[in-house]
Amino acid sequence: MPMPNAEPHRLSATTLARLIDSGDLTAEAVVRSCLDRIREREPVVRAWTHLDAEAVLEAARASDKSGKGGVLRGVPFGVKDIFDTADMPSGYGSPIYTGCRPNFDASAVALPRAAGAILLGKTVTTEFANRHPGPTSNPHNPAFTPGGSSSGSAASVADFMVPLAIGTQTGGSVIRPAAYCGIVGFKPSFGLFPPAGMHMNTDSLDTVGAMARSVEDIALFRAALIAIPYDPPVMPERPPRLALCRTPHWDRAQPEGKAVLEAAAERLRAAGAQIVDSELPAECADISEIQRRHSAYEAPRNHAPELHRHEALLSDDLLANGRIAAGRKLSLDDFRTALRQAERARAAATEWAGGFDAILTLPAPGQAPKGLGSTGDAIFNGLWTVLYMPCLTLPAGEGPDGLPVGIQLVGRRHDDRRLLDVGLWVERHLGTRQ
Amino acid sequence: MPMPNAEPHRLSATTLARLIDSGDLTAEAVVRSCLDRIREREPVVRAWTHLDAEAVLEAARASDKSGKGGVLRGVPFGVKDIFDTADMPSGYGSPIYTGCRPNFDASAVALPRAAGAILLGKTVTTEFANRHPGPTSNPHNPAFTPGGSSSGSAASVADFMVPLAIGTQTGGSVIRPAAYCGIVGFKPSFGLFPPAGMHMNTDSLDTVGAMARSVEDIALFRAALIAIPYDPPVMPERPPRLALCRTPHWDRAQPEGKAVLEAAAERLRAAGAQIVDSELPAECADISEIQRRHSAYEAPRNHAPELHRHEALLSDDLLANGRIAAGRKLSLDDFRTALRQAERARAAATEWAGGFDAILTLPAPGQAPKGLGSTGDAIFNGLWTVLYMPCLTLPAGEGPDGLPVGIQLVGRRHDDRRLLDVGLWVERHLGTRQ
Repeated sequence: MPMPNAEPHRLSATTLARLIDSGDLTAEAVVRSCLDRIREREPVVRAWTHLDAEAVLEAARASDKSGKGGVLRGVPFGVKDIFDTADMPSGYGSPIYTGCRPNFDASAVALPRAAGAILLGKTVTTEFANRHPGPTSNPHNPAFTPGGSSSGSAASVADFMVPLAIGTQTGGSVIRPAAYCGIVGFKPSFGLFPPAGMHMNTDSLDTVGAMARSVEDIALFRAALIAIPYDPPVMPERPPRLALCRTPHWDRAQPEGKAVLEAAAERLRAAGAQIVDSELPAECADISEIQRRHSAYEAPRNHAPELHRHEALLSDDLLANGRIAAGRKLSLDDFRTALRQAERARAAATEWAGGFDAILTLPAPGQAPKGLGSTGDAIFNGLWTVLYMPCLTLPAGEGPDGLPVGIQLVGRRHDDRRLLDVGLWVERHLGTRQ
Repeated sequence: MPMPNAEPHRLSATTLARLIDSGDLTAEAVVRSCLDRIREREPVVRAWTHLDAEAVLEAARASDKSGKGGVLRGVPFGVKDIFDTADMPSGYGSPIYTGCRPNFDASAVALPRAAGAILLGKTVTTEFANRHPGPTSNPHNPAFTPGGSSSGSAASVADFMVPLAIGTQTGGSVIRPAAYCGIVGFKPSFGLFPPAGMHMNTDSLDTVGAMARSVEDIALFRAALIAIPYDPPVMPERPPRLALCRTPHWDRAQPEGKAVLEAAAERLRAAGAQIVDSELPAECADISEIQRRHSAYEAPRNHAPELHRHEALLSDDLLANGRIAAGRKLSLDDFRTALRQAERARAAATEWAGGFDAILTLPAPGQAPKGLGSTGDAIFNGLWTVLYMPCLTLPAGEGPDGLPVGIQLVGRRHDDRRLLDVGLWVERHLGTRQ
């Protein structure tokens, strides 16, 4: 294949894998280009908690020398510092664990590595993937948040530091930062990507997700993350039938969020898509509150180790004003009720989603909020997370400050592959592919 | 309360907590008694992978001095070595991780500790809570297996080394060893006890469970494990209505298993229980196969870190002849189909179970098998695990070699509290309370 003019760090994972495989690029050259980009931009973006340039170059040279690897041979990736790594410190965004050394890689680290990918480093997470922010800024404008909790993963991919990164979503922690940073974010159906070695937040909601700059790259990364043969996404033969769903929270959307979603619907309709206004079934009426109850109830239980030994080192965003205080107010009966309501809502939402190729909705209220004190509002995310439905965000426009604004596609539970195919169609017809 | 004649290590957790609270016993005296018992019996039983007598005595003295603690103040407990501990090595039953030091306690360790309990040590697990056995023997006869994978937890509680222990169940790893060792085992509804810090096996099935020598002790331990106020189990006002369920696997039950179950049903009927023959609904026809598919598919994904770096140190029981080989043969579509079948089966089983106060069934085919090469057959367990229903086993008789044989009570999903109340009634009327 012809050698692109762009520097390697600007290329997609799919292109990099092809060029490395054909011998037109070395893993070392790719890693060096990413490291150069990081050296230039990291003082402003602050996406990384750990990055050892010498060790990564050594890994790249070893990859070039062995010539071994699978679908991601020589391709760099980043991982949110909520995952364990055998050869890099894991801090989970908390001063409690700064510099801690786990004994093994998380599965979301080991599987891309087994497919030949090179782990570049660890990316900034909010405290325990909750709300208390890290230092990362939005690469489009450092006065704005990149979103969270997968802040560093979204910012590093958006800023061309790395083509692929891993995040997690319990509320809106993959889709929202991806939308704020103008990249493609994918939260699969609950349980699809293996969670082993992730620091647990809410076991009934935590979902490993992926970030890239194109749908095709998401599909490639997905194959490695579940160890299945890679089968590229395919454009659907006919334009899709999409439900335009404003959700019960439309009044919390900002003008640019609403405008970008309506404009995207118009463009897709013009391209042949059938767009039908549709709202979630009645069983999902309180679904965002149900998500909050799951998350709150499990917080004091899953954070028991930190509460028992290190309570003074927890932020007020998590403790006094956050999920732990909220969780202590919930009884076991409240939790059981929420679990049962979630099951009923999931069954109804699966039935409803079966009537469409995908749901078209907002990934966030609008562009990223100003300031780094908050990572923004997850109101358009928690409902889909607790419904266990696959979600994909794509950049689709701009807000008043020139920051990216995205749209979100949601699929039927377990129909992740179809969601990526529909996502490819939408990406091509929105014309946003970088 | 009057001081019992028995040595402290023979007493229940409930009694120990009362005596320590009233100042009639010290935590140090209790721990010393448990350590004496372990010193005497451990060369035969081999239940522990880590036990530091001096450190534990020091913790007991500190507990006595502070006078602080909750419902488990001064009560010793053991934890399966599949859980992380901040101050003890965690090996997960594999030579890969011998002597590894995690950075924090699992929630199932931190929560009892926060309630004042004293962690005595780590108990033997099979390799990664799978099939490859550790060295533990059955305390009733060392020529027989204690069952697995929570082998050391079951054996140590049965042998009066410790009154409470934590296990995990993905197939039958709490209920089966508890039944083989003649104690009370409790696998709650999926997700009830927090899994943070447990080495993951099959994330859609792994369930943290508890072991003790009475239903009352299980209830006390449960309160600590989910940080709810302790409310002792209450005898139901009327004798329960029980479904006698032989399951589709009755042909795999041994004569003593069948005889003990039928005799228990007879005794409970004589005590006033209504016993109705009932089988699982049609949606559950292939439920054991569905459990195996969940477990197999997730094995190569959740064990990716070990496969990628340490494949030569994995046993054939896990790799070539085990779940990893089986999982590699399953496609993503096989897994998705199994997930959907499981959801349908759960809904049908919940409806079915609502017609009874509990299901009465077998916890294992019969008494523990001879030899330490296999931990026995989980055929009577996997179905309830994938159905997410709470399970309780109680000792109810003996097999041909004088080894314990149990019965199992299964409740409706999320109705764990009711299952313990019914369990108290059954325990009193079987007359097996130690």
